Amino acid sequence: MSNSSALEKLSSNKAFGGDLVKYKFKSAALGGLDANFNLFLPSVSENSKVPVLVYLSGLTCTEDNGAQKGNFLGHAAQEGIALLFPDTSPRGAAIQGEDADWDFGTGAGFYLNATKPEWSKFYNMRTHVTLELPQVLEAAGLPLDFTRQSVFGHSMGGHGALTLYLSSSTKQYRSASAFAPICNPVNAPWGKKAFEGYLQGGTEEAKEQYDATELIERHKDSVHILVDYGTSDNFYKSGQLLPENFLTAARGSGYDEMQVRVREQEGYDHSYFFISTFAEDHIHFHANFLKA
Amino acid sequence: MSNSSALEKLSSNKAFGGDLVKYKFKSAALGGLDANFNLFLPSVSENSKVPVLVYLSGLTCTEDNGAQKGNFLGHAAQEGIALLFPDTSPRGAAIQGEDADWDFGTGAGFYLNATKPEWSKFYNMRTHVTLELPQVLEAAGLPLDFTRQSVFGHSMGGHGALTLYLSSSTKQYRSASAFAPICNPVNAPWGKKAFEGYLQGGTEEAKEQYDATELIERHKDSVHILVDYGTSDNFYKSGQLLPENFLTAARGSGYDEMQVRVREQEGYDHSYFFISTFAEDHIHFHANFLKA
Repeated sequence: MSNSSALEKLSSNKAFGGDLVKYKFKSAALGGLDANFNLFLPSVSENSKVPVLVYLSGLTCTEDNGAQKGNFLGHAAQEGIALLFPDTSPRGAAIQGEDADWDFGTGAGFYLNATKPEWSKFYNMRTHVTLELPQVLEAAGLPLDFTRQSVFGHSMGGHGALTLYLSSSTKQYRSASAFAPICNPVNAPWGKKAFEGYLQGGTEEAKEQYDATELIERHKDSVHILVDYGTSDNFYKSGQLLPENFLTAARGSGYDEMQVRVREQEGYDHSYFFISTFAEDHIHFHANFLKA
Repeated sequence: MSNSSALEKLSSNKAFGGDLVKYKFKSAALGGLDANFNLFLPSVSENSKVPVLVYLSGLTCTEDNGAQKGNFLGHAAQEGIALLFPDTSPRGAAIQGEDADWDFGTGAGFYLNATKPEWSKFYNMRTHVTLELPQVLEAAGLPLDFTRQSVFGHSMGGHGALTLYLSSSTKQYRSASAFAPICNPVNAPWGKKAFEGYLQGGTEEAKEQYDATELIERHKDSVHILVDYGTSDNFYKSGQLLPENFLTAARGSGYDEMQVRVREQEGYDHSYFFISTFAEDHIHFHANFLKA
């Protein structure tokens, strides 16, 4: 990977005593394209480095949705935790078909590294999130302690959070949580479409590291996972999320409620109103491990 | 005013144990055009009528901005208060010039009743908010207690909140608060443009009931008002808001800190990040009076 460029500050907003800053840089992981992200620094970061909670957003979203609608900033400020909001895909790669569908290509990077030749130069959101952003932020001298990282996300970003957490050989993240995650994408339409599109080996290749249910089935070490989903979520009802498969696999691997907690929330849907309702729970869940 | 039509439910999202519902109806006050609004009902409304806090949004906004980004729903749920989010203007009146500027016409109704003939059939947001919406909601049998109402808002909506509160002969609202309100529009560019555009008597006519500073100067009864504005707010810095004028007039009328509290918030700007930071304060401020 060639060098990524230095950060350019696009905007800054004070919030809950801290600062939400939007940055841009030329991303080597994303083929040299400009990449945006938001970073929330709580006021306590003026005095010491703070732990980092990465929020991965869902299909069609950008770095802004979670920052604007997630109800995360106030709770993170209270806990003294930074929030990092990456984008959901490269922007402007100009690959044929990139903008044909809302659930594939732009806005739908699925937090993987593409292996099909036409996509692999640009679609490397996994490297972008796990390696590039920490490197770029550390190089910029921001007051972040990347030895204390956790990850959470929504829908496709919940898939990202669970799979990045469970497939990390270095235990990069201390805990993972998700709102309405795509839990078993190799058995769901969105996932199959993405994997067949981005990966040379298609859905079979995805089983190695891009399916949370497959991963938890093979996992041995202790984990800290929280999942919430709503019973009125149309994507849950149409079989895109499959949290039951994840839960069954987790219990089959011997993980109990203390390690893998999957909560069914009566009447909630797939929207940010659902996320904002349980945001406080998730921030406090991660704080347990980030501040331990 | 001819009859408004019955409510049509457009969407519903569960949030914080309650429900955020978007409705549409044909608004007589707005010349028979379709009007949208959002209503948040806390779960306690299943058992008894709840008080109503009206949120008036700013220039270019719709009924959605406050509901999605304001950080109000969770705190209102906790206090057992309903939130009513009207739109900011009629939509689709097709008046010449209506869509020429972002700060006049569509999205910029200024919570007044227009008196210029070309605008007066449609641009009656004052009647829409103060009379029509309560009537339509009561007729629909929703569990709202309109004898307990308060009002708050942002920017142009802060102007709306302060002026509807201070000019109500019936003491319709128990308290008013505002984020970065336009406090003295007869002396500010946005206000002058709106008043010259909508009112036959222009800015002079506006002094009667559409300028918070003018109104508090003449006001006699006790009031409950909270205002927050940020020192990094570009619209404050360019003289659109003029909170000092409002504060000076209030003190001149003998209102002390207990009745009119104006807080300068260091480093905050005009955005919803500022609003969301102080949302909890404002909801609790109104709860004091709505639940008394």
